[in-house]
Amino acid sequence: MNYRMILKLLCSVLRIVAAFMIPAAVISLCYGEMESFWGFIITLSLMLLLSLTTFLCPAEKKTFYAREAFVLASLTWLMVSVLGALPFVLDKTISNFIDAFFETASGFTTTGASIVVDYGALTMGAKYWRSFTHWLGGMGVLVFLLALEPITSGSGSGDSIHIMRAESPGPQVSKLVPHTLSSARILYMIYIFMTLVLFALLAAGGMDIFEAVCIAFGTAGTGGFALVPSSIGGYSPYIQWVVAVFMMLFGVNFGIYYLILQRQFKKVVRNSELWMYLGIMLAATGLIFLYVRPIYGVADGLRQSFFQVSSIMTSTGFATVDFNLWPQFARTLLVSLMLIGACAGSTGGGFKVSRVLMLFKSLKREVRRSLHPNTVGKVHIDGEAVSAETISNTYAYLVAYCLIIIFSTLLLAFDGNTFETNITAVIACLNNIGPGLDMVGPMGGYAGFSVVSKIVLILNMLLGRLEIFPMLIIFVPGVWKKARK
Amino acid sequence: MNYRMILKLLCSVLRIVAAFMIPAAVISLCYGEMESFWGFIITLSLMLLLSLTTFLCPAEKKTFYAREAFVLASLTWLMVSVLGALPFVLDKTISNFIDAFFETASGFTTTGASIVVDYGALTMGAKYWRSFTHWLGGMGVLVFLLALEPITSGSGSGDSIHIMRAESPGPQVSKLVPHTLSSARILYMIYIFMTLVLFALLAAGGMDIFEAVCIAFGTAGTGGFALVPSSIGGYSPYIQWVVAVFMMLFGVNFGIYYLILQRQFKKVVRNSELWMYLGIMLAATGLIFLYVRPIYGVADGLRQSFFQVSSIMTSTGFATVDFNLWPQFARTLLVSLMLIGACAGSTGGGFKVSRVLMLFKSLKREVRRSLHPNTVGKVHIDGEAVSAETISNTYAYLVAYCLIIIFSTLLLAFDGNTFETNITAVIACLNNIGPGLDMVGPMGGYAGFSVVSKIVLILNMLLGRLEIFPMLIIFVPGVWKKARK
Repeated sequence: MNYRMILKLLCSVLRIVAAFMIPAAVISLCYGEMESFWGFIITLSLMLLLSLTTFLCPAEKKTFYAREAFVLASLTWLMVSVLGALPFVLDKTISNFIDAFFETASGFTTTGASIVVDYGALTMGAKYWRSFTHWLGGMGVLVFLLALEPITSGSGSGDSIHIMRAESPGPQVSKLVPHTLSSARILYMIYIFMTLVLFALLAAGGMDIFEAVCIAFGTAGTGGFALVPSSIGGYSPYIQWVVAVFMMLFGVNFGIYYLILQRQFKKVVRNSELWMYLGIMLAATGLIFLYVRPIYGVADGLRQSFFQVSSIMTSTGFATVDFNLWPQFARTLLVSLMLIGACAGSTGGGFKVSRVLMLFKSLKREVRRSLHPNTVGKVHIDGEAVSAETISNTYAYLVAYCLIIIFSTLLLAFDGNTFETNITAVIACLNNIGPGLDMVGPMGGYAGFSVVSKIVLILNMLLGRLEIFPMLIIFVPGVWKKARK
Repeated sequence: MNYRMILKLLCSVLRIVAAFMIPAAVISLCYGEMESFWGFIITLSLMLLLSLTTFLCPAEKKTFYAREAFVLASLTWLMVSVLGALPFVLDKTISNFIDAFFETASGFTTTGASIVVDYGALTMGAKYWRSFTHWLGGMGVLVFLLALEPITSGSGSGDSIHIMRAESPGPQVSKLVPHTLSSARILYMIYIFMTLVLFALLAAGGMDIFEAVCIAFGTAGTGGFALVPSSIGGYSPYIQWVVAVFMMLFGVNFGIYYLILQRQFKKVVRNSELWMYLGIMLAATGLIFLYVRPIYGVADGLRQSFFQVSSIMTSTGFATVDFNLWPQFARTLLVSLMLIGACAGSTGGGFKVSRVLMLFKSLKREVRRSLHPNTVGKVHIDGEAVSAETISNTYAYLVAYCLIIIFSTLLLAFDGNTFETNITAVIACLNNIGPGLDMVGPMGGYAGFSVVSKIVLILNMLLGRLEIFPMLIIFVPGVWKKARK
């Protein structure tokens, strides 16, 4: 294990996050929130100070394997969630550390599950920082680092792809272009451009500039922290449509946008994940519309259906109505959408449409094989054969996913809340969605859980964002032992 | 597809089931229930009449492949569930056909989910028949057929193993001895012996002979139909202990008992599924005991915990208390046990301990592989390497299992019952358990569902009993088309 290299990169992450805290500090200063201002200043100074440790033991060997990348990703996300929580504690916006940790982990992982009960108590600086964590976490803090400078050995940037794989969502992460540095830059450029367009459209719709910035961050990262308890319910239909459409767009694989820029439209048309994603979204909107039309009428019903479906399936978690009060079929359909999630390579979370597609196809192959035992069927997606390793990895992902849901629901049951609350809270956190049903419905919150349950849910959010394996691996003793050989 | 052979075997099944209906008819006659008597007589005459079709198109080729065995198993189970339901309709015990079909499918699949609201309306004949379906379904009607006579080609009984595989539970079905006929006979002999011992112990505890027969059938098949609404709650602690211990025993792989008879104790000790099964049962009993001791005290608390755990994990579904009213942790733990199920090769249902064990081990292998990409790890169980096909089949089983739970819960949601009712009803039926939580709790029932939901649940029971693939395959158009080549 290349500990020195991991330390060096962790220190780079600290400097990036510290730099990103400056705007939050400035906003606090402008609004005269001195406690928040000092909270941010103290935190970012601490981060800069910690980042100096890199000079104490400089990295020598630049080689970097998958193992190191997994450990780096886990430590990065734990670190930013803990340190990013400090301003909330220092300015007394959130009274205890676990709650602040929960809120920040929920922010960076783009979950959007909140323990905030009194939105009036949040300072402007705190509101900005909460929403910004969504934006940075959405595309990834390590991917940002990769976009800045070449970070691994001079003999090609080959090794840094491991870092991208560890942090980017989806069963198969490939680079857009041969160089990881350029791939990361392209991803962030598309991301920044789309966020700016969204911001302009929100501002054009008459939204307050500060709110437009925060909501754009929350939408782009598919996060879902709102500024008021009613989430997006209080804004105009125009704003709701803009947010709904952009949630859907940010849930698409960014590789698709790169293909469009490259005018490779044929490849876009052939992308089965994209069509499955849009197809499920359309079908779910239609089904829910049939159920809620009697409540809202045609125009409003269509908007409410599409907004909620887009929000849940992309794992954003914004809401315009309390869907917890909807008929049982609509509620259950939304829970099913939670389990599917967005596309691989998007800022959205969840199990991912491409994994669902792969599992469907391999189930079909298995049924075929039980009929004709001697045929060796391969799974093809978009005309290309999927490797046995990817399939076996996807299966293992499903196993780990199910086990996490079962164990976490069991641990949450100690609190005595309802079964529906517990299982949907776990699903909503593991898939980085935010709201579930019952107590954790869109107009409810996570404040009512015990400390143990909150820690379980924090772990779920981190497991979900890093897609389980990187987080799981740091608990394998062999990883740390082998390193000392 | 060897249609003639399938028809011949279906006719043999009809004769067996007709023969087994005679005792029910006799019981009805003894108790002077003439409507029930004629119901059984008409049904069994119909079955005998139908079985004559075998002479119209006699089987020629005796070869039999996995495909044919799957189709045979599916058709057998659908047929016996439909025809076995007729007496309930004819004697007006159950007012409509779908309810009677539900009750019989629930009986044969050893689910024990009941639509009966008024137990007083059941005739003695109907009570006997309901419980007997558990006993026959538990070990399997085709396995019974296999035990009677050699049914496939003369060149060794090699092909009939496909039939055993299609009907017997577990990821790897192997014969106890080289001949399928002898294996099936040994299984049924152990089964009959254990049922007789149980009956004797129940009768010795002062239980009414008729009730002892019915409860012994329900326990042996891990079914769970009770004779009164309070299930086993009204019997003495002695009876409850006997039933609890025997449920546990019938949830063990019958291969273990054969090994004991063969004095191969070393193999028994090395069987990891057995130890995992007993370990989970012990741990769950202990955890629940801690929770319910304040309610019941030590002696009663221990019995209530063990009884409920044994009943749920073996997928029997008897109850001595309304565990729906237990603290949330205990309820959720029972739902987790439902998802594990009993051992492969037992009369119990569920996902099976051996599959859980296999998935755990392959998850471990996958984590190891993501650390050291060049190692090819094999999964070993009881010192033997598990074939790649079995693992891939188990994974596909998990995928199908999850999809069925999600889709069925969604379909049940149309009825408007609670999320907890719907998801636990699906889990309880798919795993052939019986009671779930909320409306379908141990003191509740399935009468409140709509016809569509009942059909969904019947399909779940059949899918669960035949372990998904045989039932899934009859919906693949290729199976029927290919046959006509």
